[in-house]
Amino acid sequence: MSTEGKTITCKAAVAWEAGKDLSIETIEVAPPKAHEVRIEIYYTGVCHTDAYTLSGKDPEGAFPIVLGHEGAGIVESVGEGVTSVKVGDHVVALYTPECRECKFCKSNKTNLCGKIRATQGRGVMPDGTSRFTCKGKPLLHFMGTSTFSQFTVVADISVVAITPDAPMDRTCLLGCGITTGYGAATITAGRGGIEEGSNVAVFGAGCVGLSVIQGAVRNGAGKIIVVDVNDSKEEWARKFGATDFVNPMKLPAGTSIQEKLVEMTDGGCDYTFDCTGNVHVMRSALEACHKGWGESIIIGVAAAGQEISTRPFQLVTGRVWKGCAFGGVKGRTQLPSLVADYTEGRLKVDEFITHRQNLAGINQAFQDMKAGDCIRCVVDMRAD
Amino acid sequence: MSTEGKTITCKAAVAWEAGKDLSIETIEVAPPKAHEVRIEIYYTGVCHTDAYTLSGKDPEGAFPIVLGHEGAGIVESVGEGVTSVKVGDHVVALYTPECRECKFCKSNKTNLCGKIRATQGRGVMPDGTSRFTCKGKPLLHFMGTSTFSQFTVVADISVVAITPDAPMDRTCLLGCGITTGYGAATITAGRGGIEEGSNVAVFGAGCVGLSVIQGAVRNGAGKIIVVDVNDSKEEWARKFGATDFVNPMKLPAGTSIQEKLVEMTDGGCDYTFDCTGNVHVMRSALEACHKGWGESIIIGVAAAGQEISTRPFQLVTGRVWKGCAFGGVKGRTQLPSLVADYTEGRLKVDEFITHRQNLAGINQAFQDMKAGDCIRCVVDMRAD
Repeated sequence: MSTEGKTITCKAAVAWEAGKDLSIETIEVAPPKAHEVRIEIYYTGVCHTDAYTLSGKDPEGAFPIVLGHEGAGIVESVGEGVTSVKVGDHVVALYTPECRECKFCKSNKTNLCGKIRATQGRGVMPDGTSRFTCKGKPLLHFMGTSTFSQFTVVADISVVAITPDAPMDRTCLLGCGITTGYGAATITAGRGGIEEGSNVAVFGAGCVGLSVIQGAVRNGAGKIIVVDVNDSKEEWARKFGATDFVNPMKLPAGTSIQEKLVEMTDGGCDYTFDCTGNVHVMRSALEACHKGWGESIIIGVAAAGQEISTRPFQLVTGRVWKGCAFGGVKGRTQLPSLVADYTEGRLKVDEFITHRQNLAGINQAFQDMKAGDCIRCVVDMRAD
Repeated sequence: MSTEGKTITCKAAVAWEAGKDLSIETIEVAPPKAHEVRIEIYYTGVCHTDAYTLSGKDPEGAFPIVLGHEGAGIVESVGEGVTSVKVGDHVVALYTPECRECKFCKSNKTNLCGKIRATQGRGVMPDGTSRFTCKGKPLLHFMGTSTFSQFTVVADISVVAITPDAPMDRTCLLGCGITTGYGAATITAGRGGIEEGSNVAVFGAGCVGLSVIQGAVRNGAGKIIVVDVNDSKEEWARKFGATDFVNPMKLPAGTSIQEKLVEMTDGGCDYTFDCTGNVHVMRSALEACHKGWGESIIIGVAAAGQEISTRPFQLVTGRVWKGCAFGGVKGRTQLPSLVADYTEGRLKVDEFITHRQNLAGINQAFQDMKAGDCIRCVVDMRAD
């Protein structure tokens, strides 16, 4: 019996208020309107951004809301005028949409589509309303994706079809962390990716940092130095291709991490990546760059109100400070090639999945994430 | 009677100590050693960097010293092994040398030659000694150039021969400010200069800022908005090609300069340039950039210890913070083409010269520089 055009009743993890556990609820998901797509979510990752918003520290966070932005699933139905995906397509939800019409999409310098930014930021669909209700109350959408629901509705520019040959419990992770790191190294850095032979430092060896390593390996980097305060990350880093590992807490007294990296690379790194969101680390990452050309790329998201600082001399002498979101990847255009990198063996994804939960265990997934041995926890949205 | 191989006695403006006027002295200038060049300086500009070091605020400033770094003259003699210039060549002194052998020179991303950086920073020639003495005391060299002397000695990598057809009282200014601004717009910005149609904001309409405008005009920029707290600069800015002028002190209460610029450019500038050295202005310049791709280039030199700050979100959403010295221009390779831009009418130089002094009036030149109506004062080193 087709559900097309009808409201679907399903399970979702609802964030009723900041600082509280998610609550597994039965919710109603309205059918997609024009240029919208309803997706049955099969798998979702849990990311630090979800935890940040849930914590209440995000000043733009609003409740009640259906969180989640790292999801893969199958198109259940499409609204009027949708041509980019069709019923039955395997898809990944895109919190960075791609309309191909706005000035951002038309620029080859950015992936930050502006078409639905305002409504996405307010937690509603482009027409200003929500498709989710629970106990008679509307629920907000999150990052245009809301993958912590068995069914979700997204704008048609916020979804990309990928090959059905790729397992969705893996490809869901291409919806955020892996793509963010891999893209930062292969798209954002330099003039379209790290050059062969470049010395690279990666601060923070979580999902994003490990993916930066993979991008650096793919582009033929020289030294790939991973910096993390957790020694257990060394094995992880080397498994993904790091050549060196430094624990900044274990340097001799009086030696800064930037000094150590400058020494290890005979003058500084060609590229550094902050994957921590810590503004002090961001400064170290910049100052560890080689004079004349070293670029530091900020990927981590800092807490509200925090600022980065440095002496302008660092920039006048040729260092470059930049950043990116979603790795600079234009999702609809470029994500399929990342999926191909995965299916053809150039991009590790399976290895990131250290933990798994069912929907009922999603709060445990948030706990798992805080443990040092967790890279990514994938939640099976269809299992109880 | 040739002076080759002999010590030359001449006049120079000596800075005996910080915070005091320069003193016109008779000094001895030793002959050039191997890979050194002795130049008779005909004309020199006076730049804020000279004044900054003379003030004593530069923590690396040392005395007694012969200041000056914006000079043109004629080669009097050369030391052993010098092949890049010959006696009689018209030359411009280069405080940013170009050895063509170090890793910086071999990179196409920077002009910051590293060959003699350490000795230049210490105020001595590459062999660790000075060529200047006065009253029996050695005087330090400044920025590898020391153009406030009628004769100076520089490393052969710190000088470039230019056409004798270009008047030296103009080309001396290509030794610093004009090249710095013009190069920032045509070499450092973007991937080798501002793209056609780009909207540009220039903070500070002195010699450097006016030269940025010229580079923007040459590269076909769209809006060229000049920001200066001095209304009298508007006429100057428009003469050099600015399309708009904003005095940030005259904005409505509650409107920041970055908000004004974002409004004027429908989202922000493609390129902004700080030519003030003020770290607060540097922040405004960054935040006036367009999301996704706007680049801010720091040219001004900040006071010691001052720091720039912003929220990392500015970079994560695609803005780029960079800087340059000497406009990113590789002096020996690229300065002749700037001279050609001047002699062929594409680059205004004459218009910068608002004041002139003889060597005896060099302290007045420092006073002139502080006046709002002064862009550049050129000092005739051979006139009393």
